[in-house]
Amino acid sequence: MTSEEFRKHAHSMVDWMADYLDNVEDYPVLSSVKPGEIKAQFPNSFPEKAEDFNKIFEDFEEKIMPGITHWESPNFFAYFPASKSKASILGEMIMSVLGTQGMVWLTSPAATELEDRMMEWMRDLLGLSNDWTGSIQDTASTGTFNALITAREKASNFQINENGFFRMPKYRIYASEQAHSSIDKNVKIAGFGSKNLVKIPVDENFAMIPEKLEDKIQKDIVSGYEPLLVLGALGTTGTTAVDPLEEIGAIAKKYHLWYHIDAAYSGAALICPEHRWMSKGLEMADSMVFNPHKWMFVNFDCSLYYVKEPDLLKQSYSITPEYLKTDADEEVNNYRDWHIQLGRRFRALKLWFVLREFGAEKLRTIINNHIEWAKWLEKEIKKSADFEMLAPVPVNLLCFRFNDGTMNEEDLNKFNEQLLKNVNATGKIFITHTKLNGKYTLRLVGGHPELTKGHLERAWGLIKNTANDLL
Amino acid sequence: MTSEEFRKHAHSMVDWMADYLDNVEDYPVLSSVKPGEIKAQFPNSFPEKAEDFNKIFEDFEEKIMPGITHWESPNFFAYFPASKSKASILGEMIMSVLGTQGMVWLTSPAATELEDRMMEWMRDLLGLSNDWTGSIQDTASTGTFNALITAREKASNFQINENGFFRMPKYRIYASEQAHSSIDKNVKIAGFGSKNLVKIPVDENFAMIPEKLEDKIQKDIVSGYEPLLVLGALGTTGTTAVDPLEEIGAIAKKYHLWYHIDAAYSGAALICPEHRWMSKGLEMADSMVFNPHKWMFVNFDCSLYYVKEPDLLKQSYSITPEYLKTDADEEVNNYRDWHIQLGRRFRALKLWFVLREFGAEKLRTIINNHIEWAKWLEKEIKKSADFEMLAPVPVNLLCFRFNDGTMNEEDLNKFNEQLLKNVNATGKIFITHTKLNGKYTLRLVGGHPELTKGHLERAWGLIKNTANDLL
Repeated sequence: MTSEEFRKHAHSMVDWMADYLDNVEDYPVLSSVKPGEIKAQFPNSFPEKAEDFNKIFEDFEEKIMPGITHWESPNFFAYFPASKSKASILGEMIMSVLGTQGMVWLTSPAATELEDRMMEWMRDLLGLSNDWTGSIQDTASTGTFNALITAREKASNFQINENGFFRMPKYRIYASEQAHSSIDKNVKIAGFGSKNLVKIPVDENFAMIPEKLEDKIQKDIVSGYEPLLVLGALGTTGTTAVDPLEEIGAIAKKYHLWYHIDAAYSGAALICPEHRWMSKGLEMADSMVFNPHKWMFVNFDCSLYYVKEPDLLKQSYSITPEYLKTDADEEVNNYRDWHIQLGRRFRALKLWFVLREFGAEKLRTIINNHIEWAKWLEKEIKKSADFEMLAPVPVNLLCFRFNDGTMNEEDLNKFNEQLLKNVNATGKIFITHTKLNGKYTLRLVGGHPELTKGHLERAWGLIKNTANDLL
Repeated sequence: MTSEEFRKHAHSMVDWMADYLDNVEDYPVLSSVKPGEIKAQFPNSFPEKAEDFNKIFEDFEEKIMPGITHWESPNFFAYFPASKSKASILGEMIMSVLGTQGMVWLTSPAATELEDRMMEWMRDLLGLSNDWTGSIQDTASTGTFNALITAREKASNFQINENGFFRMPKYRIYASEQAHSSIDKNVKIAGFGSKNLVKIPVDENFAMIPEKLEDKIQKDIVSGYEPLLVLGALGTTGTTAVDPLEEIGAIAKKYHLWYHIDAAYSGAALICPEHRWMSKGLEMADSMVFNPHKWMFVNFDCSLYYVKEPDLLKQSYSITPEYLKTDADEEVNNYRDWHIQLGRRFRALKLWFVLREFGAEKLRTIINNHIEWAKWLEKEIKKSADFEMLAPVPVNLLCFRFNDGTMNEEDLNKFNEQLLKNVNATGKIFITHTKLNGKYTLRLVGGHPELTKGHLERAWGLIKNTANDLL
């Protein structure tokens, strides 16, 4: 492709991109293709000859687009949003052409230093103290992995790093029954064993019961285990429940546990001082993770991992082969030592674009609107004779179900499962589910920067109508 | 930012991007800013008010660009290239606007199924047998981590996954002295301990000596260790040395070790049948990693991790909380179970664009040209009275130094270190170094898709002239 051709194709692409953003609500949110349908359209083997880009792009539109689930739609109410913004997309465009590698300072000083600054801006924006420092990572899973590894090395005085787990105590990790599945995955791969993840029961609001945590810790100590780390959720994945961070922090301190906070999703609300009731106790933690790529309009991936003692993290990961040594090593951050990967994209750029193009004021307004509209919908559901809320709404996720009082629990589960399928099959919205106390629960969460109350009103109308049709 | 504003800014951005590609050789390749200079230009705190995008972009050009090291320049001869192409950039543009999450099939069927197909295309393009299957990951570091975790779980019959390392054997990992530093990092974090990474001596070509490997394994068995995994390098980082994969494979088989192959960089050359002498024995391996984001013109990140027994990988990582269960789970690949992260970008798209827009024929021609020109430069260096080669050139990396026969080893090291600094200070090219047998070694490797022999001729001229000036 010549330079002129690139310019032409990229301009066409921009028009396609802008049209897509304009018309995204016309697509069915959830793709309705069957397993294997997309793959079957492509030849078994790679092409020998170069093909014209126009032909390739036609194939993209015809063959790929029907298999896309539209995360960009304001009517995407599933999982957690991975919302992005136009400013962030412009950031990704520059990132793609520069191809900057920020593994060490020298490989692009601007990438490291803008990241230094962005981590400070975000620390202040979230209302964290100056004790925190951090770096941008890919996902919260990796951030939580960092916490486990650093906790392990601190506790073993870096003996595991050096000699392995041989003759080490049997460590135990604690998290609520509602904590994100990444802790389950990470406990396995960090070498602790899934049996040593102790799930702490939750209260009626799905938040950890601190007395149960202390009880488990005490029993484990008596049984010869060594309590290592406790994870506090500032917003669980199932219901965005907020664990009592202060009480957990006191227990962590009493028993010398590493205290890690998962604020991957709800952390976005901390940019508004009025929601900082959630972060009371967060300052007692040793590490925390928050994803601007979820509900702060920055393209995936962009996950912030903050720590109080960065040297522990760096010592856990660092190795410096000759070919990576530079003269600046003593004066700068070499972020390759802050996570498992070596190569790293220039993620700070899109975060900088978003923070400046929105400004804190506007970001707060959007987050507050999302929360306000969720509270409105919560009231509507509570008012309705045919639906019920199944969890509180600390931020903007609604957990509810159809229940007109005529069905037993088994039938309710079946009905709500079918209701979810029928709602999603309309293509107008996409919602997902969880199970709370055995109850099949509809989860609805909107996080698009251009979400309006109208989107939620229409979603609610659709759900009610679909339930009526199903009855 | 309104839709109209986005369209306008994105079009301007495309012109900036195309101009950048046209003029990239006018920038100094290595940024010459001093530590702290870039960061100091930005205010301490985040902006409260929204700012005009034009102003933000002006700041980007004025304040960020001087701190960029130009990985996109054909005169970037440092580390390994992270070369990309115009087709791949167009792919990243679409990825940025779709924001597709491919964590499970349902979250975007096209992302999973195009990835399925691309892994087959790449398997065939690299000349691998049909026994291999895999997924796209971020980096080779993560791929090698996968290998260590899977090997550990297979050997322990998933006991480590379940119970942790408690009462497990002392495992040992083997790799050559020249293997990439990611194995050092991974051995630490996967819980084996850095002392249990056994570095095997290399021969005069910097390739592992298989007899030394077997010797170490036997001694370790006698000493009560359990040999677990051996890494074979299909192209080391220092010199692109190729370990004798067949001999290592036979030893791995004899002692029941997991056999992992790191073809992160040189794997690109396997698309040309004439370079498959390097992969003789690769079929004996259990896992392998290759990065199209290095020398196959796909934007970072795009790393392929192939395995023979995907179920072992999936069992090592999988956890399925209620909110991630879907009806399609039995019929499809859910790639969240193939690595540490949950979220994942639609990386298959840019790979598909590159494979089709280039076609295999043209990719082979480019790779072959790069290798041919490197062999030409090798001859020039050998002919020169003032320079000497310090390692063979299996593909396109040159390891050499100035040596006019008048200096002792200490002075040669100092001279070559200064030579590297002076060459890079010109801004015309960027090369890095390594140490081979204590000798300070200049490393030069060009991998840009639009690299010409002229770029290498000019680089060589510059190095010779700079050396003369320094004398």
